[in-house]
Amino acid sequence: MTDTSPKTDTAHPQLMPAPPEPLFLGYSAFELRSLLPVAACVGFLSLALVVLVIFPMQRTAGREPNATIRAVLSDNLLLLHLRVWPLLAIAALGGGALALADSRRTARALARLEQRLRRVAIGEAEDLPPARGGGFTQFDDVVVSLRFAFERTTRRHRAALQQVQDNLKRVVLRLAEQEVPRVELRKTLGGIVKEVEAVLDSDRKPAGGKMRP
Amino acid sequence: MTDTSPKTDTAHPQLMPAPPEPLFLGYSAFELRSLLPVAACVGFLSLALVVLVIFPMQRTAGREPNATIRAVLSDNLLLLHLRVWPLLAIAALGGGALALADSRRTARALARLEQRLRRVAIGEAEDLPPARGGGFTQFDDVVVSLRFAFERTTRRHRAALQQVQDNLKRVVLRLAEQEVPRVELRKTLGGIVKEVEAVLDSDRKPAGGKMRP
Repeated sequence: MTDTSPKTDTAHPQLMPAPPEPLFLGYSAFELRSLLPVAACVGFLSLALVVLVIFPMQRTAGREPNATIRAVLSDNLLLLHLRVWPLLAIAALGGGALALADSRRTARALARLEQRLRRVAIGEAEDLPPARGGGFTQFDDVVVSLRFAFERTTRRHRAALQQVQDNLKRVVLRLAEQEVPRVELRKTLGGIVKEVEAVLDSDRKPAGGKMRP
Repeated sequence: MTDTSPKTDTAHPQLMPAPPEPLFLGYSAFELRSLLPVAACVGFLSLALVVLVIFPMQRTAGREPNATIRAVLSDNLLLLHLRVWPLLAIAALGGGALALADSRRTARALARLEQRLRRVAIGEAEDLPPARGGGFTQFDDVVVSLRFAFERTTRRHRAALQQVQDNLKRVVLRLAEQEVPRVELRKTLGGIVKEVEAVLDSDRKPAGGKMRP
C-alpha cells in the first residue's frame, strides 16, 4: 500500500497539458496565423505603391527634358522613398504586435479552458479561476454544468450504494443477534432490491430534462 | 407516464447554446476585435502619409515660384492622391476580410467545442465531428477523456448496483423457496456489504493515476 504513494506525486499528468509547439520566437502556429491580415495588407500596399506610384513618378522624372524640373521631381521622389518605407515598416510592426498580443490572449484563455476541462476529467474538486484578461466567458457555465453533471451522477450512485450498505449492515447485525422471520427478511431484502432498481431505472431516463433545477 | 413524452421533445435545452450576440453585420464582438490590427495599421498609414508626405509636397508645390514646375508638382501630387487612397482602401478591405474570415473560423471551432462539451454534460452518448476546417485539435483528447471519465465512473457504479441487485434477488428467491440457515445468510449478506464497501472505497482514491490505462 505504501509503495503507491510515489505515484500520487506524479499523478495528474493531464493537469498540465503540454503547451502547443512554438513555431517561431516562442509563438505557436495559431498565434502566428493572426499576422497574416496585417502582412497581406502591408505587402499589398508596398507592391502597389512601387508599381502604381513610385514607378510612374520615376518614369515621368526620367523623361523630363528640363533639368530643373527633373531635379525637383527627383527630390519629390526621394522624399517619398525616405518617408513611405519607414512608415510602412512601423505600420507593419505595430499592426503585427497588436495581432500577436490579441492572439496570445486568445491562446492563453484557450490553454486555461483546456486546463479547467482536464481538471474536471480527472475529478479535481476545485475549479481554476478563468484566465487573466478574461475571454470565452461562454465556457464558464459549460465547465460548471460539466462539474455539476459529474457530481450529480456520482453523488446519486454513491448515496444509493451507501444506503444499500447501511440497510444490509442492519440486517446482518440483527441476524447476528437473533433469528429473523423468513417473511420479514424477504420483505426487507425485497425493499432494498426495489430501491436499487429505482436508481438504475432513473439513469435510463434522459438526463437533459432534469439538468436544470 | 405518457404525458412525460412531450418533455422529451423540448429536452436538451443546452444542446443548442445561444450563438453569441452579433454586434455588427452579424459579427460578434470577438470576431470584430480581429479587425483592430488592420484598422490600426491602415489608419496610422493614412494619417502619417497626410502629415509626412502629402502635406510637405503640397507646401513645396505652393511655394514654387515657377508656374511650369508648380504644375508638374501638382500633377505629381494628384497622381499620389488618385493612387494612394484607393490602394489604402483596398488594403484595408482585403486585410479586414482576411482577419474576419480567420476569426470566424476560430469562432466556429469554439462554438463546436462548446456544443461537444454540452453534449458530454447532458450525457449524450454520441460525440459530434469537429468543426469543418478543423481548429483546436488539442481539445479532441480533452473531450474524449471527459467522456471516458464520465462513463468510467458511471459504469463502475452501475455495475456495482447491478451486482448487488442480482445477489440480493437470488437470496430473496431462496428465502421464498425454503428456510436458509442464519449463518449462511449472514455470510452472504456480509459479502455483499463488503463488495459495496470496496466500490465506495475505490472512489476515494485519486482518479488521476488510474486514468491512463
